Amino acid sequence: MSKLLKSLVLDLGDRSYPIFIGERLLGDNAYFSDLLKSRRVAVISDETVASLYLDRLRAAVPEKEITTVILPPGEASKSFPTLEKLIGRLLESGLDRSSTLVALGGGVIGDVTGFAAACYQRGINFIQVPTSLLAQVDSSVGGKTGINHALGKNMIGAFHQPVGVIIDLDTLRSLPDNQITAGIAEIIKYGLIISEDFFIWLEANVTDLKKLVPQTLAHAIYHSCRIKSEIVAKDEHETHGHRMLLNFGHTFGHAIETGLGYGRWLHGEAVGCGMALALKLSQKRGLISAADTTRVVRLIEQAGLPARLPEALPAERLMALMRHDKKNVEGKHRFILLEKIGKAFVCDDVSAAELREVLDSAR
Amino acid sequence: MSKLLKSLVLDLGDRSYPIFIGERLLGDNAYFSDLLKSRRVAVISDETVASLYLDRLRAAVPEKEITTVILPPGEASKSFPTLEKLIGRLLESGLDRSSTLVALGGGVIGDVTGFAAACYQRGINFIQVPTSLLAQVDSSVGGKTGINHALGKNMIGAFHQPVGVIIDLDTLRSLPDNQITAGIAEIIKYGLIISEDFFIWLEANVTDLKKLVPQTLAHAIYHSCRIKSEIVAKDEHETHGHRMLLNFGHTFGHAIETGLGYGRWLHGEAVGCGMALALKLSQKRGLISAADTTRVVRLIEQAGLPARLPEALPAERLMALMRHDKKNVEGKHRFILLEKIGKAFVCDDVSAAELREVLDSAR
Repeated sequence: MSKLLKSLVLDLGDRSYPIFIGERLLGDNAYFSDLLKSRRVAVISDETVASLYLDRLRAAVPEKEITTVILPPGEASKSFPTLEKLIGRLLESGLDRSSTLVALGGGVIGDVTGFAAACYQRGINFIQVPTSLLAQVDSSVGGKTGINHALGKNMIGAFHQPVGVIIDLDTLRSLPDNQITAGIAEIIKYGLIISEDFFIWLEANVTDLKKLVPQTLAHAIYHSCRIKSEIVAKDEHETHGHRMLLNFGHTFGHAIETGLGYGRWLHGEAVGCGMALALKLSQKRGLISAADTTRVVRLIEQAGLPARLPEALPAERLMALMRHDKKNVEGKHRFILLEKIGKAFVCDDVSAAELREVLDSAR
Repeated sequence: MSKLLKSLVLDLGDRSYPIFIGERLLGDNAYFSDLLKSRRVAVISDETVASLYLDRLRAAVPEKEITTVILPPGEASKSFPTLEKLIGRLLESGLDRSSTLVALGGGVIGDVTGFAAACYQRGINFIQVPTSLLAQVDSSVGGKTGINHALGKNMIGAFHQPVGVIIDLDTLRSLPDNQITAGIAEIIKYGLIISEDFFIWLEANVTDLKKLVPQTLAHAIYHSCRIKSEIVAKDEHETHGHRMLLNFGHTFGHAIETGLGYGRWLHGEAVGCGMALALKLSQKRGLISAADTTRVVRLIEQAGLPARLPEALPAERLMALMRHDKKNVEGKHRFILLEKIGKAFVCDDVSAAELREVLDSAR
């Protein structure tokens, strides 16, 4: 039997949706039948996840007519050719505007499935069933969907909210350690930007979190989803600056990912390092003490994340990449900085010279 | 000097936007400067339109930094490869989330530009500057954007409203006659589905309309945009059935276009024939008199549109194509029929046998 540990609702008026967190949810019809209004459903997954969990999901919804689309694992599936093929499969299977997609997998599957749902026949429903820790605490919640362009990550996409998120903690047991670690990066982020209490809880519980203790996991995922939901509810389309706080550590992180080539470091690893850099930038501006920076770097390292830049990546290359960041407005560098642990803000006037100094100090 | 003949507002709350109709608007800074908030602008056009009007538009906004992206003319540009190249150009030119796109061209340019704006960095502003009659009375208004898939027209897209529509009647003078005729098909549609008065006005004025008499054009375009705006304001995302009325004649029309191969008949020509078929279906159901059908077919033919199916297209092929229509829900054929001239409704239970009869009678 399934065991629901936590649940919450992302409040967006008539587009509100539930987030369920628990054990063995994947095999329980109850969580799917309410969200799947149509008989025709397409489950999108990758080879790795499908081999482990697709049968369990199928068994939960015997009454549905299911098309499965299995993509190769990895970031390369967030591409135009994959999207075109995926949409071709939906058309061949006769999915119409009342049909629903199910994203069964990590962030890549969620992003490409969400974007396919956003643009298939100008928009259909989809459900997120995130199977990686990163996707469970971040990418499956809030409606950001998209694919990559050769010239930049997530440059093509849409805000398209799922109709529900089903988080089955059991799927984390099949993940390699470094993927758990990568997920913890985003969890730490929520403490840093919004909640000192959550940050303190993490300092005390990071070891149990890495051991996947169910109650600890559920607590961490619940508070991550809660904080993200509150931010998204206030600023769904990232127009008021509030949602931008979620990008803490990500400007550096994206530049590292692109600079190394997608997939050399995991997204969460790059974000871990990016947060350490953002701390250093905040400290250099006299916003945060050296002691707090040390405390954050310690948690990042305890989690198993890198706090220093990879040797192979020259500062010039990172500087060039950050000029393309989506948050920049008409040429100015925009960064999320910390005023203190638990309080982030958008800073619009970071100079190239400051950035360069931080990059040089982080080897 | 420019001459504004008509204007209206599509009322969508904080996404409301103006529609300006007049002569020489393309060269007038006044209509663009209010709508272009950013310094960086990309104008998307096709080779034919750009050679005629791009300089005029450029001269109107000397204060902007303009990137131009010129696509090959024709439906083939509504494709994934074109979209990917277009987005690459926007990235190379450093357009950010505050930048604005301008669609200068017919329906193809408006659809692909609008979809690029919908998904570039998850959504940026765009302006419609429709240069074909079809785009001026239909595709530039209401926010439907998209591209084609090998398996179906407009199967990938988004609802993304422009921030304004600028209709310069002078651009119609460079159009071939058959494109004017194709635009008139959609104008007739508005009369048929909503307004008997407008239909009667069209019966009296179709000759002047074909001659491009400015006041006649402005009247026809204004009322077309007004009717479409009222429908879109009530049902922006085609969820309540109301917006579906705009598809009158289009289920048949799309099947004809796809069956013949895109571009063999113009969209408006296919819609003209589609409306004649929808009339016959309405008459067969006892909804409309033979006299009214004759009256409509007469106007369609006076406009220069085909009211009969092309010989080359077997009924079986059309039947197969209509099974893929986006309006179908879980297998049922859905058609827009007329109760009388000026009153359309959504009919959910059209049988394959009825359809077949209508197709066979329209040779």
